[in-house]
Amino acid sequence: MSMHQPPQLAGVPALWRARYETVRHRTLALAEPLSDEDCGAQSMPDASPIKWHLAHTTWFFETFILERMEDGFAPFHPAFRVLFNSYYNGVGEKHPRAQRGLLTRPSMAQVRAYRADVDRRIARLADSVRDAAQARELGALLTLGMQHEQQHQELMLTDVKHLLAQNPLLPAYLEGALAGAAPVAPPAWLAFDGGLVDIGHDGEGFSFDNELPRHKQCVAPFALASRLVTNGEYLAFIEAGGYDDPALWLAEGWDWVRANGLRHPLYWRRGDGGGDWREFTLHGAQPLDLARPVTHVSLFEADAYAHWAGARLPTEGEWELAARAAEVETGWLHPAGLAAGHDGQALAQLFGHCWQWTSSSYAPYPGYRAAPGALGEYNGKFMVNQYVLRGSSCATPAGHARASYRNFFPAGARWQFTGIRLARQP
Amino acid sequence: MSMHQPPQLAGVPALWRARYETVRHRTLALAEPLSDEDCGAQSMPDASPIKWHLAHTTWFFETFILERMEDGFAPFHPAFRVLFNSYYNGVGEKHPRAQRGLLTRPSMAQVRAYRADVDRRIARLADSVRDAAQARELGALLTLGMQHEQQHQELMLTDVKHLLAQNPLLPAYLEGALAGAAPVAPPAWLAFDGGLVDIGHDGEGFSFDNELPRHKQCVAPFALASRLVTNGEYLAFIEAGGYDDPALWLAEGWDWVRANGLRHPLYWRRGDGGGDWREFTLHGAQPLDLARPVTHVSLFEADAYAHWAGARLPTEGEWELAARAAEVETGWLHPAGLAAGHDGQALAQLFGHCWQWTSSSYAPYPGYRAAPGALGEYNGKFMVNQYVLRGSSCATPAGHARASYRNFFPAGARWQFTGIRLARQP
Amino acid sequence: MSMHQPPQLAGVPALWRARYETVRHRTLALAEPLSDEDCGAQSMPDASPIKWHLAHTTWFFETFILERMEDGFAPFHPAFRVLFNSYYNGVGEKHPRAQRGLLTRPSMAQVRAYRADVDRRIARLADSVRDAAQARELGALLTLGMQHEQQHQELMLTDVKHLLAQNPLLPAYLEGALAGAAPVAPPAWLAFDGGLVDIGHDGEGFSFDNELPRHKQCVAPFALASRLVTNGEYLAFIEAGGYDDPALWLAEGWDWVRANGLRHPLYWRRGDGGGDWREFTLHGAQPLDLARPVTHVSLFEADAYAHWAGARLPTEGEWELAARAAEVETGWLHPAGLAAGHDGQALAQLFGHCWQWTSSSYAPYPGYRAAPGALGEYNGKFMVNQYVLRGSSCATPAGHARASYRNFFPAGARWQFTGIRLARQP
Amino acid sequence: MSMHQPPQLAGVPALWRARYETVRHRTLALAEPLSDEDCGAQSMPDASPIKWHLAHTTWFFETFILERMEDGFAPFHPAFRVLFNSYYNGVGEKHPRAQRGLLTRPSMAQVRAYRADVDRRIARLADSVRDAAQARELGALLTLGMQHEQQHQELMLTDVKHLLAQNPLLPAYLEGALAGAAPVAPPAWLAFDGGLVDIGHDGEGFSFDNELPRHKQCVAPFALASRLVTNGEYLAFIEAGGYDDPALWLAEGWDWVRANGLRHPLYWRRGDGGGDWREFTLHGAQPLDLARPVTHVSLFEADAYAHWAGARLPTEGEWELAARAAEVETGWLHPAGLAAGHDGQALAQLFGHCWQWTSSSYAPYPGYRAAPGALGEYNGKFMVNQYVLRGSSCATPAGHARASYRNFFPAGARWQFTGIRLARQP
Repeated sequence: MSMHQPPQLAGVPALWRARYETVRHRTLALAEPLSDEDCGAQSMPDASPIKWHLAHTTWFFETFILERMEDGFAPFHPAFRVLFNSYYNGVGEKHPRAQRGLLTRPSMAQVRAYRADVDRRIARLADSVRDAAQARELGALLTLGMQHEQQHQELMLTDVKHLLAQNPLLPAYLEGALAGAAPVAPPAWLAFDGGLVDIGHDGEGFSFDNELPRHKQCVAPFALASRLVTNGEYLAFIEAGGYDDPALWLAEGWDWVRANGLRHPLYWRRGDGGGDWREFTLHGAQPLDLARPVTHVSLFEADAYAHWAGARLPTEGEWELAARAAEVETGWLHPAGLAAGHDGQALAQLFGHCWQWTSSSYAPYPGYRAAPGALGEYNGKFMVNQYVLRGSSCATPAGHARASYRNFFPAGARWQFTGIRLARQP
Repeated sequence: MSMHQPPQLAGVPALWRARYETVRHRTLALAEPLSDEDCGAQSMPDASPIKWHLAHTTWFFETFILERMEDGFAPFHPAFRVLFNSYYNGVGEKHPRAQRGLLTRPSMAQVRAYRADVDRRIARLADSVRDAAQARELGALLTLGMQHEQQHQELMLTDVKHLLAQNPLLPAYLEGALAGAAPVAPPAWLAFDGGLVDIGHDGEGFSFDNELPRHKQCVAPFALASRLVTNGEYLAFIEAGGYDDPALWLAEGWDWVRANGLRHPLYWRRGDGGGDWREFTLHGAQPLDLARPVTHVSLFEADAYAHWAGARLPTEGEWELAARAAEVETGWLHPAGLAAGHDGQALAQLFGHCWQWTSSSYAPYPGYRAAPGALGEYNGKFMVNQYVLRGSSCATPAGHARASYRNFFPAGARWQFTGIRLARQP
Repeated sequence: MSMHQPPQLAGVPALWRARYETVRHRTLALAEPLSDEDCGAQSMPDASPIKWHLAHTTWFFETFILERMEDGFAPFHPAFRVLFNSYYNGVGEKHPRAQRGLLTRPSMAQVRAYRADVDRRIARLADSVRDAAQARELGALLTLGMQHEQQHQELMLTDVKHLLAQNPLLPAYLEGALAGAAPVAPPAWLAFDGGLVDIGHDGEGFSFDNELPRHKQCVAPFALASRLVTNGEYLAFIEAGGYDDPALWLAEGWDWVRANGLRHPLYWRRGDGGGDWREFTLHGAQPLDLARPVTHVSLFEADAYAHWAGARLPTEGEWELAARAAEVETGWLHPAGLAAGHDGQALAQLFGHCWQWTSSSYAPYPGYRAAPGALGEYNGKFMVNQYVLRGSSCATPAGHARASYRNFFPAGARWQFTGIRLARQP
Repeated sequence: MSMHQPPQLAGVPALWRARYETVRHRTLALAEPLSDEDCGAQSMPDASPIKWHLAHTTWFFETFILERMEDGFAPFHPAFRVLFNSYYNGVGEKHPRAQRGLLTRPSMAQVRAYRADVDRRIARLADSVRDAAQARELGALLTLGMQHEQQHQELMLTDVKHLLAQNPLLPAYLEGALAGAAPVAPPAWLAFDGGLVDIGHDGEGFSFDNELPRHKQCVAPFALASRLVTNGEYLAFIEAGGYDDPALWLAEGWDWVRANGLRHPLYWRRGDGGGDWREFTLHGAQPLDLARPVTHVSLFEADAYAHWAGARLPTEGEWELAARAAEVETGWLHPAGLAAGHDGQALAQLFGHCWQWTSSSYAPYPGYRAAPGALGEYNGKFMVNQYVLRGSSCATPAGHARASYRNFFPAGARWQFTGIRLARQP
């Protein structure tokens, strides 16, 4: 992990602590609507229990900060080094990912105590900073830890959504009906000139190492749809037989559709006897809102839809070029329709609704270098057989999104808030 | 399910209620040492969460008694009929077995409320019995429900043991070290004449339908070991290369050993660096006690051990013939060594330590008939590719064991308290 | 393998040789209608290529006779000891079963040469027998080898049938339409008294070790259907929804039906657009003949059918008791209808049509002992999770059937000529 | 498939026919050293039987040329349309890929007759060309069919190598020992300036659609190793513990290594008792030649090796830029060492030895368009989760290689002649 912090923050521990406390508190707040039982279960190997997220994000601070910088460091619990290591081989053994839901001990109470203990020690460490170099190191690691924890905040929401969706009682994470979105007009096609452009983080503020180094890409002229594909548009694709026509699909996508017997996005359900479509949301099952963006689709589905619509998915370079000046919108806990007053001719829904699949495989930028040591495992080792998603979603924490951000998942992943923005030749 | 109740109990609801309350209370008592988090997790498809056991045993009374006999019956919760149905196709849909651990709702508190509500209604029903016929029907169904719940009490212990064993913290269900058992002499071989004998339940007291009808079997003379195989004896088998010699194993057993890379019983572990053997128990990890019976072995392992020892497993007819007059001993929560004062020449450890694998496949007795309706699914439909175990274990509730009892599991099952009693030609 | 040979044959090598040549020649004759390409392919792990059968049966004579008794023994090819070992761990390594179809070398020509070489050496060995003891040993081993080869003759037909059935061209093993069988009346129920009866081979002529020792069984009175279940009767079961009603099935059978999406016996196919039923046979696809016995059904299907028909499957003891005096009929290469002139009141179709599933698991008879050494692996190690079939089929070589013969397969096996004979309480 | 043919060839059927006959004849010649049995077997789903290759390449001409252009077209055999369709959904149903080895019918003789029949009809069609437009269409389709057949010629060699390697007899495709290669010096690092360069086919001669359109890429300065990684260098990686250190591997690669228990390239074997390394080749098992290029490695292995060597894999843009002026060398049937006289300072082994893994995922070039109809399935639908290989191998037909050629396989594929060329920052 290389990262970039504004130099003026060095030597200002109090400010770090305020940010730290805000982030750490929000994690606990996300667990508030849930029982200890809800927090322990794991619905699939790709998803983790809430309790595990609470512990792992704490482990990150304990392992990468306290263990390095605290005088007389002793672990909160010696077994936690293994239990809550996600994938850092450089740190040592890991508890098997698929068995995180079997860790009924430590209890939620013990994990809360673990969090409190680490928070206390981090605060003490910040108070004891002796010089600017140490402040810089601590600041950089705290920033990384907070960004890491924000990533897990998003996963907490998507993972618990997946868990609740397995329960025939269809419980809501938060009660409350979703308001109907206003009907939308067809998207506009906004043209971009392309050219030899700079891609990657521009050096101000934090970024992950995978957004670096900033480098030149040659982008041909292209057009981008002004908004995300809606549920209504996707339903038209379904009703036109989209899931039955191999000509629309990547070969591996077609095999995937058939092997899994898929007919619609992950959380769509039909009422009994072929009734109206409903969608499971963090607010429970809701009528399918045709004006909201379609979400929880795989790259395969996004690509097939684009093919059907006579378009294609954008590359990540195209997306980043177009998104440079965009504002981050704020959704609730589900992708929203277009904001009132949107004239349909500007780029909308870039951030805060659905992550947007690109056709770009997740690969290192030219000259990319991972950090030395275990932190070097943060990003680089996943750069194969995954695809880049750009933007951010309704589950992304405020302040975590930026135009150069590269999210990535395998082509068949559906449990994130993934959506579709179309591109085409101009 | 056919069953047999002492006629004198008909029409004595108060007595039923006392028994009922005892059984129902013990189920809750078994969950006492556990947190709500412990009660929700499922460590493999064959095992169920404690919470599910609490709810399913209640569902059994609600479905097979209240739904039939209660005036104006309304379910406690309409979804529970599906959620807590184990395998009764005659009742309707079932929640997938492997996903019981994802039911974080209903909560433990709601399941306790469910239990209390059904208990209240059962009591009211018992108080309102109008005539002897109704008393007989209610008595028979209550008896079956209680026997069913006792079966689940044993499963609660074996299932939670399996769950806790997956946790690297190796938590104990109950604290407390196991006392070392006294060393044992080699087993005596006790000879039996065999002959044309009656096998099956003899008509007094309750039995499950699979113990009926009582019928003649022709049993050749045989000898039975006076006690169970010990950990020490089984360790000698391991150290002699028992897990490496295909000549000792059934062909399917050998494939199973190799495919799973097995080298010892389920809960044995070696200390770091090849140290002393330890065994995970409900009292946590304990030093392996060489004088206690080996347990948590599959039929394949029991058969291979017997082969190595120049013996064989008994048939269920042999076992039942020998066990007729035996006393039920009481263990703690782990199989115990021989009782002090045992002279080594009598049959010991028939009940209360380990279920004993027989070479008999689980099959209907001649003339067997399952009950009509959904209760007919209780036993009969499992009569293929399973093997009979006789006796009872340290986890079997008091009063639940008898000489004609037929327990059954697939040949590779190891998470029950299964042990080995040898037989041979006399 | 223990076996029993008439003493008068000892010392009569010429007679042995005639039998030997007959058996060996028939194996080659079975391969006659097939190309070398046909002989090399393997359609599933349970089935073997014809070439492998030709080589393995030869390996059996080479390994168990020549290697023991031939002066200056040298193997035909050193690699064949591994390549053509089926499952004898006592002989050493084995080529993986599922990869027999990849052995394009040795060629069919080389395998034929292997057969000729071993035949020559066996003849020379028989000519050189020096004394009665050696003659007895050779005679016993030759008998076993010939019986073994006859078992493989049946497998050659069932395995090549399975292979040809995978080919969309549906090629026939032998050309020629099957004649329509005469319509049949409902079966008669023939009553048997049972009692304390002797079961197992009676000591005259050859038997496999699993038919021994002869022992007493206590058989309750029962009735047996006079003939096998027909295609027409089984079709009625299908049309009555037999494959959709879990109440008819063993639990494991129901899971098996659903997991495999089964709706009919293995080789039944419907014409395009829901047309007439056809059945793939060794004579190619044929119209389904309603009067012929249903075949290629699993134990699960046989049991469900019996359940639906208000009957049950016989035990192997019942079957053997009833079959004592039966004649072996001769079919073609497909099960035939009732012989002309059959009055419907005698037991028919016991031999020569379909193997008949029993409810008896494959288990050792009381006092069973396997032979010492590698030949002891012939039968005993398969005595778990398999079920006994009695009788013989249209693919069984002449002279290979007898009332005490115990064939065995897993409950889900369908590629043998397996059929259904019903039993019930009298 | 779009493609580009020199206009002067239109209207010159004789020349087409000569080329056609050469290509078609070479396919048969490749099958010459093999028996009919060899030609029928399929060693894994990814590989096809030789017979299937012979038929499928013929099906391609029949389906895409004769069916379109022949007057009164009738198929050679109606079932072949399904049997020998590889993956063209637009043509209709396909025989399941994993079951190609079960097609013992049609026989090799019938497939040869199929080839001869189609060749006759293609010749007749070429003779009957009426005008330039038809000549152009026929020429374009014939060219595509020949290129397609050349691709299958390479697969025939890699597929039969995989088949023969499964046979414990380790038969050679062609007899003859490989000559030892001369020892090699460490590779030189050749620097390239990069810049805004044109990538993709330049419009002269044939290309596949995936090499188009030619477009600008911005390539940063880089260095390329002058030759391929040798067996000796790769052995040093193994001996340094390369397969045991997760820090060297992509996360998915590490999982792949562990799940498959891999320790070396696909065809390496150690002699008994840890003896010398040997490599299975089309010339049978040979001593491992340390000076020849390592081959049959996955992208995961190539990437881990590069990581260990302090380098990286090239991108496909870098590779193409460097390879512009290279000559195609000719190997035997195994990658060769450096040519005598090579001074070590020029790029060597670009073509004719091993395909070279790049870090580029297989994706459409900007503005890529697949052909309409079934031929559009040729390339585009595979553009996900595959990685580009550049160059050509010792199995690639003469005349089939070029600098813009994009071969592609999943990251775990090893049965092609895949090797490693390193890159790094200059």
